Amino acid sequence: MTELPPYWLRDNCPCPECRDPRNGQKLFQIDDLPDGLAVAGSTEADGHLEVRWSDGHRSRYPLEWLDRADGGDGRTEHGKRLWTAADFAAGLPGARWEAYLEDPAERAAVLAAVRRDGFAVLRGVPAVERQVLRVAESFGYVRVTNYGELFDVRVEPDPNNLAFTSAAIAPHTDNPYRDPVPTLQLLHCLENSATGGDSGLVDGFRAAAILREEAPDAFEVLTRTPVPFVFRDRRTELRADRPLIEVDPRGRIREVRFNNRSIGTVRGIGPDDLDAFYAAYRRFAAIALRPGLRLTFRLGPGDCLVFDNTRLLHARTAFRPDGHRHLQGCYADLDALNSTLAVLHRRAAALDTIAELFAGEGAGEYLGEEVTMAEHMLQAAAAAEAAGAPAHLVAAALLHDVGHFHGALHGRDLMDGRDNRHSDSGADWLAQWFGPEVTEPVRLHVAAKRYLCAVEPGYRERLSAASAYTLEVQGGPMDERRAAAFAELPGARDAVAVRRWDERAKVAGAPVPGFEHYRPLLAALMR
Amino acid sequence: MTELPPYWLRDNCPCPECRDPRNGQKLFQIDDLPDGLAVAGSTEADGHLEVRWSDGHRSRYPLEWLDRADGGDGRTEHGKRLWTAADFAAGLPGARWEAYLEDPAERAAVLAAVRRDGFAVLRGVPAVERQVLRVAESFGYVRVTNYGELFDVRVEPDPNNLAFTSAAIAPHTDNPYRDPVPTLQLLHCLENSATGGDSGLVDGFRAAAILREEAPDAFEVLTRTPVPFVFRDRRTELRADRPLIEVDPRGRIREVRFNNRSIGTVRGIGPDDLDAFYAAYRRFAAIALRPGLRLTFRLGPGDCLVFDNTRLLHARTAFRPDGHRHLQGCYADLDALNSTLAVLHRRAAALDTIAELFAGEGAGEYLGEEVTMAEHMLQAAAAAEAAGAPAHLVAAALLHDVGHFHGALHGRDLMDGRDNRHSDSGADWLAQWFGPEVTEPVRLHVAAKRYLCAVEPGYRERLSAASAYTLEVQGGPMDERRAAAFAELPGARDAVAVRRWDERAKVAGAPVPGFEHYRPLLAALMR
Repeated sequence: MTELPPYWLRDNCPCPECRDPRNGQKLFQIDDLPDGLAVAGSTEADGHLEVRWSDGHRSRYPLEWLDRADGGDGRTEHGKRLWTAADFAAGLPGARWEAYLEDPAERAAVLAAVRRDGFAVLRGVPAVERQVLRVAESFGYVRVTNYGELFDVRVEPDPNNLAFTSAAIAPHTDNPYRDPVPTLQLLHCLENSATGGDSGLVDGFRAAAILREEAPDAFEVLTRTPVPFVFRDRRTELRADRPLIEVDPRGRIREVRFNNRSIGTVRGIGPDDLDAFYAAYRRFAAIALRPGLRLTFRLGPGDCLVFDNTRLLHARTAFRPDGHRHLQGCYADLDALNSTLAVLHRRAAALDTIAELFAGEGAGEYLGEEVTMAEHMLQAAAAAEAAGAPAHLVAAALLHDVGHFHGALHGRDLMDGRDNRHSDSGADWLAQWFGPEVTEPVRLHVAAKRYLCAVEPGYRERLSAASAYTLEVQGGPMDERRAAAFAELPGARDAVAVRRWDERAKVAGAPVPGFEHYRPLLAALMR
Repeated sequence: MTELPPYWLRDNCPCPECRDPRNGQKLFQIDDLPDGLAVAGSTEADGHLEVRWSDGHRSRYPLEWLDRADGGDGRTEHGKRLWTAADFAAGLPGARWEAYLEDPAERAAVLAAVRRDGFAVLRGVPAVERQVLRVAESFGYVRVTNYGELFDVRVEPDPNNLAFTSAAIAPHTDNPYRDPVPTLQLLHCLENSATGGDSGLVDGFRAAAILREEAPDAFEVLTRTPVPFVFRDRRTELRADRPLIEVDPRGRIREVRFNNRSIGTVRGIGPDDLDAFYAAYRRFAAIALRPGLRLTFRLGPGDCLVFDNTRLLHARTAFRPDGHRHLQGCYADLDALNSTLAVLHRRAAALDTIAELFAGEGAGEYLGEEVTMAEHMLQAAAAAEAAGAPAHLVAAALLHDVGHFHGALHGRDLMDGRDNRHSDSGADWLAQWFGPEVTEPVRLHVAAKRYLCAVEPGYRERLSAASAYTLEVQGGPMDERRAAAFAELPGARDAVAVRRWDERAKVAGAPVPGFEHYRPLLAALMR
């Protein structure tokens, strides 16, 4: 293992001296590390590589981490589906707006389509003004430009842009004269009763990839020629010099700019280079405008197209004045969309982890009771649901004992006479995904038992044998002062409710829904 | 001239078939041009190159345009001042907030400093919450991120970022895990009474240029190695893979990213490349952290630092809990700042043009009166000012006859008995920079004369000889119906006021202020 590059390995040391455990931020400067840093010794044990460094520091790396594959940031052609129109013969990627809002899996699928195909269409988005901003805010942040927070695409009396006429618009990317360019565009259809005015999309990455295959020299010319894009009106004078095709340092296509209307005057290169640029530009244009590459469809009222403006070219056909066409558009950025998608995936993975706990460890004995841990928690959740409890309490009932799986100590420690503080460890673990409305009843559910034993006559006597035993380990009934303080806590009432479902959830063989029944409820609570 | 690259030349044809005269947008696709396009013939005449094309099209290019120098988009090292701390021994670039708001020249100077030096400090910005957003909106648009519309930099109980503690923060760029990265940052000081907490800036372009000089291979490694930057908290998971030093296709430094806290794990390159990357990264860090490069200063309440986050690294020293330190920050983008600066320069150039008209053509005869055109307009403005007229009417009085200079017909045509419609042409020309409150009184001032001749007994008889003559060319007094319609126009009252100052402004040798007296008033009206 010592053949690993030493500064790379050390820069990634996960110990709490090197990284803030709260946010993963690195706590040292790269040039704080001594010159000539070397691995003094290393051992593999327990799935980890342990390293002693020449400066005395010690690091411990999971072996899994050392070999981890890396998908990159998802912004280059790598890992995307480059398409032609025929690939969508079966339909466009997208979802109904309501399903998108309600179901995180549906939301993730839509955002993943934007990442993979460069676009998705939401259907049934309320056809009201400014709604496009709500769509953008469902996954990110609106980017304000000189066109405003949003813009109306319809026939204007004194248009400062061809977009605001009824003319056909050839495939193009928007705002190439901005840097940073808005990386996402949204177009929300409010009305489309005119003849014509169909929408078109072209995969600019695909067009660039075709150019690379058919004319590699032309491709290369376009990646290395900065082109000025310009826009000017009374209040605005924008210019950005960027290549038509931008590749990352490894040569992968990363951004495409294509806009005949706003391309300015290329200067500063010799006549031969200008000839070569124009030959390449014309060739790229001929590919991008091939009919087979253009996906054509019609937006109807309530449809909202979301697309990657660093990749897709968009177009529209001309329309006649026999009806009205009105879209509202806005810009946003891919980074926030990708972040939202990653968090949705992280949450789905968390639900998978919890589901696995119920299926695996959860099938084991529950502290001497006649039900398994999973049965116990599922029964508690069913009781909460039957009582008409709000979603967060159904979730708290379902998850109240996860600390038995995931604490530093396990349930068996409790039965050995040591408190594993499972309510705290469970609440802390759940706090990765759930808010206090779920975690605090979990945290307080043991205290609620000690409270009820103190204040409710006969409650202690009704405890199961195992529960009576663990009560002592947990500190016994509260004294009067503690019970009064507990009753004042904001989460006390919810915790008592969970405790009551908890105590009844020990019925051998009771038929209750399985974990999957609760997945949508849990997903909706993850914020 | 035929050795000019033909597609380049044709793509820049300025004729109204090729470009929309309203907004300069190009009206053809590059592949609409025929293969084998060539210049069939060309002649130079009247300061223009006239070209006949092989497809029959004709183009006409100003010779000045053909040779025009090109400054680029102002985003690379080219044309910037790369600095070290010693360069600011005499003080930091900036202005007082009130002067910045009131004086367009001051505003342009501040924005030009951000473009040239990467930063400027506004002093005396009201130290109230959310004011930083007003500063950003004074030149552009706020970029919202996961930190919100704005963020508070102060000690937080549960910080998700080292920024929200009292620890020292080493020089870094912000948000490298965002793509697009916010290209501008603003930090507005509300309170800074703690010991420590001084601000620091490092010119990252200068640091990169030093690296290029001292270790060209290391520079090259950093430009070609994509580095993952990552940020993750409960609601966010951001990642961007970009090089530490980004150059444009011509090798000029364009963006720097430097943030030890959020640099992730570089993968996908071999051990030798990793060693080379880390050696280069350490060398770059050692340069960027050299004390001589770091400019240190203290922000006091009301100071707002505006800086280029693609170029400058910012830092702060640790501070003690013996006082409070509270900054509010937000992000914005360079493109809008550069646009605002270009528009300010365009307006300053327009004022220069108008000033030249007053000094040049304006010194000529005014349609047979005993004053020059410039004297006439300056007298009208002085009369308006003496009457306590609002700024827009002083401007209208000052500029009411510019159409005589700039119409398709000149003043002498009017004296030849042809109406040059100077009120319309003047108003249209002024509409490039001024709103209707200025242009409409100019447009209507001739109509106001015809109106007054119709409705005010004795008015016609008091006209000067020249004015009486032009009245006929202009259509004579209005009939009753027209006069009634004129009186209903929204701008009629203002036009009549201008006409009254106009008619009196013909006093030979009257001492009045010169054009420069009105420059601030005109600059403030340009919107």
